[in-house]
Amino acid sequence: MYQYEHGGDIYDDKLQSLQKDLLDYSSNINPLGMPASVKEALGQAINRCDRYPDPFCRDLARHIGYFEGVSAEQLFFTNGAADLFFRLASCIKPQKALLCAPTFADYEKALNTVGCQLSYYPLEPEKNFQLGDDYLDYIEGDLDLLFLCNPANPTGQIIHPEFMGRIIEKAARHQVLVIVDECFMDLTMEGERLTAKRFLEGWSNLIIVRAFTKNFALPGVRLGYGIFSEIDRIPSLRKCGQDWSVSTFAQAAGIAAVREGRHLEQSQQIIHNQRNYLARELKRMGVEVYPSYANYILFRTPGFLDLKEKMLEKNILIRSCSNYRNLGPDYYRIAVKDERSNHRLVRELQAALRENRGEGDLNG
Amino acid sequence: MYQYEHGGDIYDDKLQSLQKDLLDYSSNINPLGMPASVKEALGQAINRCDRYPDPFCRDLARHIGYFEGVSAEQLFFTNGAADLFFRLASCIKPQKALLCAPTFADYEKALNTVGCQLSYYPLEPEKNFQLGDDYLDYIEGDLDLLFLCNPANPTGQIIHPEFMGRIIEKAARHQVLVIVDECFMDLTMEGERLTAKRFLEGWSNLIIVRAFTKNFALPGVRLGYGIFSEIDRIPSLRKCGQDWSVSTFAQAAGIAAVREGRHLEQSQQIIHNQRNYLARELKRMGVEVYPSYANYILFRTPGFLDLKEKMLEKNILIRSCSNYRNLGPDYYRIAVKDERSNHRLVRELQAALRENRGEGDLNG
Repeated sequence: MYQYEHGGDIYDDKLQSLQKDLLDYSSNINPLGMPASVKEALGQAINRCDRYPDPFCRDLARHIGYFEGVSAEQLFFTNGAADLFFRLASCIKPQKALLCAPTFADYEKALNTVGCQLSYYPLEPEKNFQLGDDYLDYIEGDLDLLFLCNPANPTGQIIHPEFMGRIIEKAARHQVLVIVDECFMDLTMEGERLTAKRFLEGWSNLIIVRAFTKNFALPGVRLGYGIFSEIDRIPSLRKCGQDWSVSTFAQAAGIAAVREGRHLEQSQQIIHNQRNYLARELKRMGVEVYPSYANYILFRTPGFLDLKEKMLEKNILIRSCSNYRNLGPDYYRIAVKDERSNHRLVRELQAALRENRGEGDLNG
Repeated sequence: MYQYEHGGDIYDDKLQSLQKDLLDYSSNINPLGMPASVKEALGQAINRCDRYPDPFCRDLARHIGYFEGVSAEQLFFTNGAADLFFRLASCIKPQKALLCAPTFADYEKALNTVGCQLSYYPLEPEKNFQLGDDYLDYIEGDLDLLFLCNPANPTGQIIHPEFMGRIIEKAARHQVLVIVDECFMDLTMEGERLTAKRFLEGWSNLIIVRAFTKNFALPGVRLGYGIFSEIDRIPSLRKCGQDWSVSTFAQAAGIAAVREGRHLEQSQQIIHNQRNYLARELKRMGVEVYPSYANYILFRTPGFLDLKEKMLEKNILIRSCSNYRNLGPDYYRIAVKDERSNHRLVRELQAALRENRGEGDLNG
């Protein structure tokens, strides 16, 4: 049997049978939606789909290079960021890798395809799931690579640039490759300050992974990319997969999206405000809320194990985090959406928690 | 350095600097183009791209299952057929595989990612690159899988169902997996008779690979799939890659395309007629033409090594086959396109061959 381990599977027959106004809080998409210019570019791309897409994404690389402030040669594009994790695993074939626990499931899934031995740095709720100085002790001689997610998924925590620098430096000394997944960075107000891009020049062991999936609400289009501190890694990556993994639509969307810096700024502001609102309301409900820098919030409802099912009855899909390493069955993640949806979410969460306490009283 | 090994890279800077009316004979796309209904479906899909695509392609599987006359559970979808080859390699990790030489480059590329040992069955021009009975001798005990392309790329040859049956039967006896790439089958008039689908029921060692890339002129959209005789192989394939490899656009295009059976029939007729025309004209030019059942033709111009460059000067891109195993530097492949384009191609080929002979005379 195969177990799907992510949010956002709104196509499940069980969900499809619900009413049509399902609110999806399980996947973390920009609440501002897709910019109009990107939609237009997608429409125009239809007529170019009768040709193979550019296997080297040349035009896209020029645009994203400019957008990211890196050279086009440092970029390698894939069919969404998740595709890059599998290609990196297939190409590098690491024997030992370090992951945080909890973290995004696909790092482990990708490393498993090459039989990589995994070690885990345990993130602790008592420390708000923040990396401690002892993380550096996990970077040892026999390690081949490590994955970091910044801001982290599902916790929303960040790694400060000073500490990231120390990680990269120690990793370099031990010839360990550092892969930093920044897929949510551009939706963070402090993103420009927090990104690991400043380390691209000084170090050869850094790959930053980014995607347009969340930033521009394009998860259906599939566009991700790596920014490489060492461009000599890219040719071998090309050998480890097909030449046409980035569709004509993805290339067109990426080129249009880089002109939408203003859209990102607006999104950051809305997410910042709405995240504060949601965190405040969650705390008011007596829920354990973990501080987040991202467009989602991790929280815990001690002992309340079927909140996801209860919320589904109200047509709201939230992410149960019970399948993450180191998280218990009463951890949940919600996206930060628009004000109106968030109001509805808060109302329904309040009701669910009230009902749960009521049932508890009746049972107790 | 990375060497791109296919046709269709029309984005190369060298080509981009040419005039805009470049005729691409290097990639084998349906000359009838994309059906209007598919374009419409792609347009409608734009508004659904702000959600993740269905990771299990449920609706698509129902539609394609009906179209192919197989059960939805037998289907596994990927980001174009090429993506499936890499996923199969990553999942199965074969230690020894059998390929034809020449054949499509990505089987070997995919198998190389897992360090698979390769053996080659040499296809010979004297036999029109047809499989001989001795192919069966190559199926031995230590083989894990074999790839066949039917119709074959780049030769256009087919494997008759009777012989395919003998291959599958012997492979089954030796526990060898048979992967039959039928990406060009639906553009062949005899396709329904020639497909290996009849063997899906009796044998558990068969995977048929198909794509909508060529059939419906959608190479920019990326949609391929495997039809599995043994559905128990599919869950492990899911583990060997991301969950969202098939975009919202690809799923929408596939669902729309299955209603276009008439479009395929018309395409088959046009390709049949135009292929006959091109083959006749090529023979008339004194070129060595190999019989083709597909929407492309392999030919040889003995001693004329720079036909591709000469044709590029005339704004026509043809596929040099010099990088295929077992083919020399004077082998070329051309797509079968529409009548008007084919007339232009024939005129320019005639001129190029005439010039070459003229130069030869001058030099000699």
